[in-house]
Amino acid sequence: MCEQLSEVSVDDKLNEECGVFGIIDYDGNDVTRRICYGLGALQHRGQESAGMAVSDTNGPKGNIMYHKDMGLVSEVFRDETLNGLSGNIGVGHVRYSTTGSSSKFNAQPFVLNYLKGTLALVHNGNITNSEELKYELANEGIVFHGTSDSEVIAYKLVRTRIRSATIEEAVAKVAAELKGGYAIIAMSPRKIVGIRDPFGIKPLCLGKLENGYVLASESCALTVAGAEFVRDIEPGEIITITQDGIKSDISLKSEKRAHCIFEYIYFARLDSKMDGINVYDARINGGRALARRYPVDVDIVSGVPDSGLIAAEGYAKELGIPFELVFQKNSYVGRTFIKPTQEERTRAVHLKLSVLESVVKGKRLVLVDDSIVRGTTMANLVKMLRKAGAKEVHVRISSPPFLYPCYYGTDIPSNSQLIANSLSPEEICEKIGADSLGYMQIEDLETMTKDLPLCKACFDNNYII
Amino acid sequence: MCEQLSEVSVDDKLNEECGVFGIIDYDGNDVTRRICYGLGALQHRGQESAGMAVSDTNGPKGNIMYHKDMGLVSEVFRDETLNGLSGNIGVGHVRYSTTGSSSKFNAQPFVLNYLKGTLALVHNGNITNSEELKYELANEGIVFHGTSDSEVIAYKLVRTRIRSATIEEAVAKVAAELKGGYAIIAMSPRKIVGIRDPFGIKPLCLGKLENGYVLASESCALTVAGAEFVRDIEPGEIITITQDGIKSDISLKSEKRAHCIFEYIYFARLDSKMDGINVYDARINGGRALARRYPVDVDIVSGVPDSGLIAAEGYAKELGIPFELVFQKNSYVGRTFIKPTQEERTRAVHLKLSVLESVVKGKRLVLVDDSIVRGTTMANLVKMLRKAGAKEVHVRISSPPFLYPCYYGTDIPSNSQLIANSLSPEEICEKIGADSLGYMQIEDLETMTKDLPLCKACFDNNYII
Amino acid sequence: MCEQLSEVSVDDKLNEECGVFGIIDYDGNDVTRRICYGLGALQHRGQESAGMAVSDTNGPKGNIMYHKDMGLVSEVFRDETLNGLSGNIGVGHVRYSTTGSSSKFNAQPFVLNYLKGTLALVHNGNITNSEELKYELANEGIVFHGTSDSEVIAYKLVRTRIRSATIEEAVAKVAAELKGGYAIIAMSPRKIVGIRDPFGIKPLCLGKLENGYVLASESCALTVAGAEFVRDIEPGEIITITQDGIKSDISLKSEKRAHCIFEYIYFARLDSKMDGINVYDARINGGRALARRYPVDVDIVSGVPDSGLIAAEGYAKELGIPFELVFQKNSYVGRTFIKPTQEERTRAVHLKLSVLESVVKGKRLVLVDDSIVRGTTMANLVKMLRKAGAKEVHVRISSPPFLYPCYYGTDIPSNSQLIANSLSPEEICEKIGADSLGYMQIEDLETMTKDLPLCKACFDNNYII
Amino acid sequence: MCEQLSEVSVDDKLNEECGVFGIIDYDGNDVTRRICYGLGALQHRGQESAGMAVSDTNGPKGNIMYHKDMGLVSEVFRDETLNGLSGNIGVGHVRYSTTGSSSKFNAQPFVLNYLKGTLALVHNGNITNSEELKYELANEGIVFHGTSDSEVIAYKLVRTRIRSATIEEAVAKVAAELKGGYAIIAMSPRKIVGIRDPFGIKPLCLGKLENGYVLASESCALTVAGAEFVRDIEPGEIITITQDGIKSDISLKSEKRAHCIFEYIYFARLDSKMDGINVYDARINGGRALARRYPVDVDIVSGVPDSGLIAAEGYAKELGIPFELVFQKNSYVGRTFIKPTQEERTRAVHLKLSVLESVVKGKRLVLVDDSIVRGTTMANLVKMLRKAGAKEVHVRISSPPFLYPCYYGTDIPSNSQLIANSLSPEEICEKIGADSLGYMQIEDLETMTKDLPLCKACFDNNYII
Repeated sequence: MCEQLSEVSVDDKLNEECGVFGIIDYDGNDVTRRICYGLGALQHRGQESAGMAVSDTNGPKGNIMYHKDMGLVSEVFRDETLNGLSGNIGVGHVRYSTTGSSSKFNAQPFVLNYLKGTLALVHNGNITNSEELKYELANEGIVFHGTSDSEVIAYKLVRTRIRSATIEEAVAKVAAELKGGYAIIAMSPRKIVGIRDPFGIKPLCLGKLENGYVLASESCALTVAGAEFVRDIEPGEIITITQDGIKSDISLKSEKRAHCIFEYIYFARLDSKMDGINVYDARINGGRALARRYPVDVDIVSGVPDSGLIAAEGYAKELGIPFELVFQKNSYVGRTFIKPTQEERTRAVHLKLSVLESVVKGKRLVLVDDSIVRGTTMANLVKMLRKAGAKEVHVRISSPPFLYPCYYGTDIPSNSQLIANSLSPEEICEKIGADSLGYMQIEDLETMTKDLPLCKACFDNNYII
Repeated sequence: MCEQLSEVSVDDKLNEECGVFGIIDYDGNDVTRRICYGLGALQHRGQESAGMAVSDTNGPKGNIMYHKDMGLVSEVFRDETLNGLSGNIGVGHVRYSTTGSSSKFNAQPFVLNYLKGTLALVHNGNITNSEELKYELANEGIVFHGTSDSEVIAYKLVRTRIRSATIEEAVAKVAAELKGGYAIIAMSPRKIVGIRDPFGIKPLCLGKLENGYVLASESCALTVAGAEFVRDIEPGEIITITQDGIKSDISLKSEKRAHCIFEYIYFARLDSKMDGINVYDARINGGRALARRYPVDVDIVSGVPDSGLIAAEGYAKELGIPFELVFQKNSYVGRTFIKPTQEERTRAVHLKLSVLESVVKGKRLVLVDDSIVRGTTMANLVKMLRKAGAKEVHVRISSPPFLYPCYYGTDIPSNSQLIANSLSPEEICEKIGADSLGYMQIEDLETMTKDLPLCKACFDNNYII
Repeated sequence: MCEQLSEVSVDDKLNEECGVFGIIDYDGNDVTRRICYGLGALQHRGQESAGMAVSDTNGPKGNIMYHKDMGLVSEVFRDETLNGLSGNIGVGHVRYSTTGSSSKFNAQPFVLNYLKGTLALVHNGNITNSEELKYELANEGIVFHGTSDSEVIAYKLVRTRIRSATIEEAVAKVAAELKGGYAIIAMSPRKIVGIRDPFGIKPLCLGKLENGYVLASESCALTVAGAEFVRDIEPGEIITITQDGIKSDISLKSEKRAHCIFEYIYFARLDSKMDGINVYDARINGGRALARRYPVDVDIVSGVPDSGLIAAEGYAKELGIPFELVFQKNSYVGRTFIKPTQEERTRAVHLKLSVLESVVKGKRLVLVDDSIVRGTTMANLVKMLRKAGAKEVHVRISSPPFLYPCYYGTDIPSNSQLIANSLSPEEICEKIGADSLGYMQIEDLETMTKDLPLCKACFDNNYII
Repeated sequence: MCEQLSEVSVDDKLNEECGVFGIIDYDGNDVTRRICYGLGALQHRGQESAGMAVSDTNGPKGNIMYHKDMGLVSEVFRDETLNGLSGNIGVGHVRYSTTGSSSKFNAQPFVLNYLKGTLALVHNGNITNSEELKYELANEGIVFHGTSDSEVIAYKLVRTRIRSATIEEAVAKVAAELKGGYAIIAMSPRKIVGIRDPFGIKPLCLGKLENGYVLASESCALTVAGAEFVRDIEPGEIITITQDGIKSDISLKSEKRAHCIFEYIYFARLDSKMDGINVYDARINGGRALARRYPVDVDIVSGVPDSGLIAAEGYAKELGIPFELVFQKNSYVGRTFIKPTQEERTRAVHLKLSVLESVVKGKRLVLVDDSIVRGTTMANLVKMLRKAGAKEVHVRISSPPFLYPCYYGTDIPSNSQLIANSLSPEEICEKIGADSLGYMQIEDLETMTKDLPLCKACFDNNYII
């Protein structure tokens, strides 16, 4: 799903989905490899660039080392690079690849040498008032090297820090001026400070090392870094972690909460738990709801790998129909494979996914995916299944059609490219060549996440801010 | 499975598994991108190096261009590289990564400028008498730049070709001296010649373009290259494809046949069909046989992604137990991720696979994989499942323990590293911490491939040559 | 000489010698290649990094492109790089390699996107009050990425520009606060503004294109860029060049002038003319003065290539003794040749220079160089000459011993490394093994540059500021 | 001169000028850095590629390591590369850059693993019967990867070695079949064998280490490697150097000798001594002869740097006229500077050489160079001198016009590009705009090299073979 989105997404430069990570090891053990592992577990949140900044809390003041570059964690961090970095405290970042804003100047962490020392910052989310903040800073002579709102926050923090007693005080002052959805980790050579937006739009959680702490966008990054899940950071909470332990400041806490439903639909990893909800359970339950809403009598239920598989399992369970894999996925064909010519576009789909004919032949089946963007890929898949002998192909989508822009960090393609903007479900069904098509209903989204207050603005135009 | 094997395999320099591909387009259309697509579909057969050689059948005589390098197809062939290559006839190769013999000098195709022009050669398999052939050539002053038996065949072919009327005549003469299992495609600037060993140990099949032909190790490479499956190359058949059509020479055909069972167990891709057998069906049937042999009363059946999933589906079907995914696989963590230190080895497993707790908690389950090499990975997985709350973990392996070396091209780890060589199944079960362990029985292998004559020497020490 | 200096220079991060270049072509022709040529002619002023920024005066507002990197002009600018740049206005820079401050973050031009657009800046010289300026900026939240005073000027200029009507107004305001010796060219997308420090310590001159202008550190860069020498920029003059022509502001002009004598001794190129004095003539005259002061009866006069050759010619002329080349210089052995081990250090000298035995054998000779730093190289040369059969070797140095630091941009090694700081001329003569040694006298420096007011502070401790 | 030649030279793939080097250190000290130094001193003989092969005479049999690549010695061998090589015996090579045959496959040494072990080979010169030898080998199935005759010799040697008792025996057998001019060093893991062609066309000399030996194309490479000159290798001599000392085989010695005059005119370095003649003396004497033949009354004599400087000194001495430098050479502008467009060609000359106006103004002068190829560069220089105020410019060329091809390794441009082929000296004089022009006379060449028998075939069409 992510790849389909990125293929069609275009411009709005400040929008992005990312993963953030922070760690401090009180025993003084090196954390660079654990940051790599953590970022590896968060890689699904962003494949454009990766980076880390580290420091030694016992070292000379102000010494933050960093490395960041375009590419996957495995490309940016080789053994020889890691050998040049060391420290027992650090932050890391993976950035989502959106066409247009792809640039090394937007790679994070931002590490800035300022009057009082050095600080590093990583950020996931979107600041809706970043243009005003940017103008205000630029008017003082601040020069921006990239185009992201994360850089604006970094400079804002530096300027605020100069007239603040501590970095956490500066973070609190800056956060009071930020609007939007965000999770930020700031780092001075001896401290990490995490903050989550007051509505809890973006996720951030806390884990515990044997002797130290971890902050991460998702809980799936904790285990690989050797940490155990403690709790989610509260919406609006500023958490400061130093050699002396944890300090929590909830002065920005709000009554209203609005957790992004997209995290459960496809951003977050299956094995993550966010604000009390297992992502896996959410998707199973979504599939079940879809089955109750749009049941159909078929022989097998399957999903588009990997984004539709779990909702398909839920759909199958609800109806007591066997769940089976019907596609072979080629995991070697990723971002960097030679671009298909127009003529090769159909063959390119075959390169990524091919049908297992033995399963499909003569069968009536349901195919579940998490979304339809332009519809061309789904049309190809339906055609492939029919060619392999499928008697019926019923498509089920585990999210409602998104019709409205997201201002809080989800990079939704522009209207003109979204098939749901120009066609009705019936017309889409015809266009993709399916026997039937069913979308998740907005009111069924609650079944995924129980009573968690959700932001569903991209579906229902109901914005919290 | 492949990755586990490669981690522990060590030395025997001449052993390798590879994928070969050949194509000719009578209409004169460029084939370079189709070779890339074909190699992309064969990438599972080898990730060490990739290469292609192409020529224009209407161009000046003798002009074969090529490019090869270490890495995945997507790394070796970028758009700019492809732009420098063109032709309507070509061969391609992907090479398996085995420790020790990893070298750019072993990358294929071998393209040699000799007295009568230029020829290119790609090869999958192992020649058991290559040392004698190599000595004979070296004694005439031939210099080898790599260590592979493929290079020996290439030089042997050049020397033979000088005193032969055609390349197919030379191929026939050389093949008559080769022992072992192999699929070879040789190419002159205007012809491609394919040959499969007389016992059919290694696979090779023929596809048809709108106006032209394709040869490939597996049928899964045909569709992406725009071809339709025609038939398998016969064991011992020499097939010559030119602008004038196809010519078949079966003078080397043998009565005896012995198809490698490993292709069905894990080399070949699910959606390939070889010698009349769907690989998917073979694995489903293997799982069913395993279920009949070692049934157990559990709540769910699952497999290790991706190698054990389909046998697990078969196992589940046979017993009527639900098949469910229990692991989240991180597809971003591949060959090149930073190597774990000893201390991090356990965390590294978590980075690749993590348990979906919601599925596992409180459940009795069967976990299917296609093999156990050293046992450490399986032990980790069992431990992870138990930690996530699994009440029972029963392990089923969809192949017998391999106990004997393969002389025909399968890179089996040395005895000392194979857990099955030192421990009984009961001891292995204890070591990996499972509640029960069941291996596929040698006599059940027949259920996978019907009445196909098989080479099972690595299991039963019964070698055909 | 430059290389010897750089070998021993160490730390003071803000010191540097550089070359600056600016160009505008009113006809709209591309200037990128002419900038390359100009920088190539200024390459002797700095080999650490090179860069250029260009813009199209008819293009969309604010579009300045740039490229800069570590290395020689020929390494930084290849054809493919140049193809990515275009414009009819631009600035360029070459930077001197001093140990310690060598970093890509110090490469110029500095190109900054600020509130009102983009500006680029190149700078040669040293600002003595840069620390105060830096603190003042940092206190407003400005973040510096390198360590050079040039970056301080750039940010100071940005901040000033925001509250100024034009860039030339901003340059004038900034210049009024700068202390030290400098030549600066600032560039907005449609203008270039040059300024030279009020004392004329650093050089800057103006050339005329057929239809346009060039600014350059030295006149030798004009011809290769297709320009003719017009005049030197006046000390303290701010010159603004736009599509509408040239504007000159002399509000900062000072009565006092102090041109750096080092430019004539060795920084500038032989074929440059600065403030009315030909560099070649200055060196010939220096050699003549040296000959008058320290004549000696020898067979031939020679110089250390290339730094001592012209003073040697002057010395020879004055005494009517033949000037001959006695060393073969290896021009392939430059900055990047493998570093010699301690044991190889003597051989390394041989690699750079070797004696022409036929010339030297049985001869009494004078060897001229422009300076002695540690004395080890000169000692080696004298030894080589004696080994080749020289009967007498008299060393003459065409500058006085430098004994005091330079605050205006010349990177003089620290005291402890300067042989002249610890030894008397007699002791140095003995240490280098010469038959006699003569240094240029401070009072003779005037003969090089006629009545030009000079800064000779490094020799006489007499600082203008 | 070399650069001018290479600019216009075109195709004949087998022609090349190169430098060879071999070394053995009986004390077992590493020789890799000394090979670098030696190749650095031979760099003027070839700038296209560089390489070395080394072995440890006390190490395991057959272990020859090597590294070679396109580029200068300083580019091919960095510290990190050298750290990967070690041995106390080795050979090295620098290759001349000729358009057309420039390819990494022609880089030397050729290192071949053959039946009896490994051997390496470096070669300077040209084999006139290489096509026959190549056919003979190709007919046995030998495959060539490059296009140089050096590779032919290497394979011929391998094939011969298989049926010989020692490498020196094989070298002698091969040499008996070679025709042309050459200097070759072959190396087995424990021996180096040098050979010079029977006529002595190509140079090769022997140097002595404290405990070991060096072979090199020119004596200038000995000092930097820590060796003292012993003697030239005799024409036709095969010299074998092992741990046991030196062995000399003169069975191929010929009565006739023909030393290449071009080595003295411009190939060799000034400080080299070849076959008893100092290169410096040869050029001084050439300049003197030129002065006697074409005297002229001028104020100063100068030369084109660097190729014409010494002949100019000789010219000046003979007539008692002052020799002075009139050009500033830019040593930073080498092979890799951006190529000039047609329009920039004149400026490009200025970038390399600029006139010192002060010297030239109002003067009558002689300008000496070693050759004229197309005449365009010389015409530019004359024009530059006149523009700078020269009253008269008399051109003198220190070699006769070359009119005939060289079959022994000198890469002479094709006839159509040589100005001397289409124009008479008078016409050339007019074309280059000189006041007078004088070429060295063929009969005067003897004055350069005393009674040394010379090959002057490129001037007089008198070939020895």
